[in-house]
Amino acid sequence: MPKIVDHDERRRLIIESVWALISRRGLAAVTMRELAAEAGFANGGLAPYFRDKDEILLAAFQYACAATERRLAPAIAESRGLAALRGLCHELMPLDDTRLLEARVVIAFCDRALYAPGMSSAYQATTARWRTLMHNCLAQARLLGEVRTSVPDERIVETLVAVVLGFQANAVLTPAATTPERQLEVLEGLLDSYV
Amino acid sequence: MPKIVDHDERRRLIIESVWALISRRGLAAVTMRELAAEAGFANGGLAPYFRDKDEILLAAFQYACAATERRLAPAIAESRGLAALRGLCHELMPLDDTRLLEARVVIAFCDRALYAPGMSSAYQATTARWRTLMHNCLAQARLLGEVRTSVPDERIVETLVAVVLGFQANAVLTPAATTPERQLEVLEGLLDSYV
Repeated sequence: MPKIVDHDERRRLIIESVWALISRRGLAAVTMRELAAEAGFANGGLAPYFRDKDEILLAAFQYACAATERRLAPAIAESRGLAALRGLCHELMPLDDTRLLEARVVIAFCDRALYAPGMSSAYQATTARWRTLMHNCLAQARLLGEVRTSVPDERIVETLVAVVLGFQANAVLTPAATTPERQLEVLEGLLDSYV
Repeated sequence: MPKIVDHDERRRLIIESVWALISRRGLAAVTMRELAAEAGFANGGLAPYFRDKDEILLAAFQYACAATERRLAPAIAESRGLAALRGLCHELMPLDDTRLLEARVVIAFCDRALYAPGMSSAYQATTARWRTLMHNCLAQARLLGEVRTSVPDERIVETLVAVVLGFQANAVLTPAATTPERQLEVLEGLLDSYV
């Protein structure tokens, strides 16, 4: 009987094992051969799962998004309005080692997404999801009377999305300036200005 | 007599001619051979000027920074305080085609800078320069009585740096949401909150 192989599961296991290599050296610097070795495959062994490095990068980005989404669930479920918005932003900010590694993948992904339509639509879908969640929290915060500013929600959301994305790069590249404490202060300053 | 070749000038001409190719397809997707062809060299002809693609990317980044710096000069010279801060941010935001192309190079650069120390120090030097200019404008704006907020300057600068960098990615990747108008509204909203 032929072995039953769950390709989705196999792809997930490969991504988990190559994740550290991508995070450490960047996708541009590693070869398909090294990625295969990291995942415990012979040279060429990744071909049935991933056609090229871009497909691996897309899967790594989606893996990071799924991890973020899992962390978001309690932040959204257990709080409302402004507290939920704060919790949401915290999960999108690179405040610890896990999220710093994810930030590296997001940056690599942004670069490739500039030229690969399939990747840019994945980026758009992800940031559209963040925007929707932020809008929902803000609408709730206004109903609760926590947010009373005349600044329109679209502008607040665009500000927060730009800030968390800017942090993704700066927390990795200028860590002395963009510390977790400074990131949290910036967020609180913004949220205070909307009360 | 041997021909006198100005290597710095030659390097600058090469960067100018490969700039469009990098902006259009991303450095990761182009080969040294294509870059040489774009610059009008035979295959291998770039070797005396650039050892590898990373060196070309570093030069392209520095070229973009120099262009930004040239645009910044009048913004700083002709205005003071809050107006100078606004002008500075405008030059760092991807509001037109030139700055959108520069944003693409900045994003590619951020990705490689994560793993190449020489490139990350170039990034740090550039953002340190932005931070210093912003601090100078803010100090002047406080002296002029234009900025009276109790929010410390460090936090204002960190917010603005994160926002302009977030725009670099979002104006290219989610242009429908991150329009020039929206970027300007976000900036004005932030500056208003510091008055």
